[in-house]
Amino acid sequence: MALPHDYAGQVCSLARALEIVGERWTLLILRDAFYGVRRFGDFAAHLGIPRAVLSDRLKTLTAAGVLERTPTAQGRDEYRLTTKGESLWPAVRALTAWGDEHYAPDGPRRVLRHAADDAPLDTDGHCTACGAKIPVRDTVVAPGPGLHPATATDPVGAALNHAHRLLKPLHTG
Amino acid sequence: MALPHDYAGQVCSLARALEIVGERWTLLILRDAFYGVRRFGDFAAHLGIPRAVLSDRLKTLTAAGVLERTPTAQGRDEYRLTTKGESLWPAVRALTAWGDEHYAPDGPRRVLRHAADDAPLDTDGHCTACGAKIPVRDTVVAPGPGLHPATATDPVGAALNHAHRLLKPLHTG
Repeated sequence: MALPHDYAGQVCSLARALEIVGERWTLLILRDAFYGVRRFGDFAAHLGIPRAVLSDRLKTLTAAGVLERTPTAQGRDEYRLTTKGESLWPAVRALTAWGDEHYAPDGPRRVLRHAADDAPLDTDGHCTACGAKIPVRDTVVAPGPGLHPATATDPVGAALNHAHRLLKPLHTG
Repeated sequence: MALPHDYAGQVCSLARALEIVGERWTLLILRDAFYGVRRFGDFAAHLGIPRAVLSDRLKTLTAAGVLERTPTAQGRDEYRLTTKGESLWPAVRALTAWGDEHYAPDGPRRVLRHAADDAPLDTDGHCTACGAKIPVRDTVVAPGPGLHPATATDPVGAALNHAHRLLKPLHTG
């Protein structure tokens, strides 16, 4: 399938990247995928996104090889990040860190920790205790000072009221 | 000025960040600002973006405190990244690196180097020679293996056929 060429004349890598991930909602969908969301209904409930838009974005991401769609034994499809998709983590983390820095007056809603020693990561994704660069699979997302747990009205939000290792499937019932 | 709330119900920092930088073209405009582009006409010529869209994006970025508009002695306005804007560099760099990894079969068109020792940066923005994390002001953008200099048909593209320190104004005549 041909990918869209939204930025005519722009041959740079950033323009190519934005053709895949620059559409409205796409980076939020990918963030949820890093949190362990895999099912269409969970993405829809957590993001409050119109189902037609979600369906379109998942198709684009699957066609681009960022997500992989796999049927489950229960007859439902699951969407999982591919290796190519996982390599978007530094971009998702950097944009989220920028939002945390400038638009989270009560502090971040969610913080990232190194699973092995539970120390927080710095904005570059390095562990503040051991100094190592932490791969996405060894990263835990945990409630931060800006989170108000009572506001979670969907299963994904409720599951994320507890520390959770990135990419591990979220149990949403 | 009120900022748009495009992602109703999403209170996370990533949604807030995307309300500022997630519109079409915005990250490409910011990348050019990191390259040293400051004038409306230079952004327009390099990006091939409709002037009305460019004008709208520059207004949003100025209102959000990402860019600052300053009049020059020649009576033209210039747009410069603020400190808040400069802190978007890790996000711009990470998305560009992802595009380079997956959509640049001839290699990156532009590479980043540490000004002090001319060594390339790794995808995290650390110098591959001295290991230091390199601030945006100490970073040089230089032609990479995927660049075809003859394709530059605008003054910004032509100026970027030579190594150039980020944030330093580009001489475009």
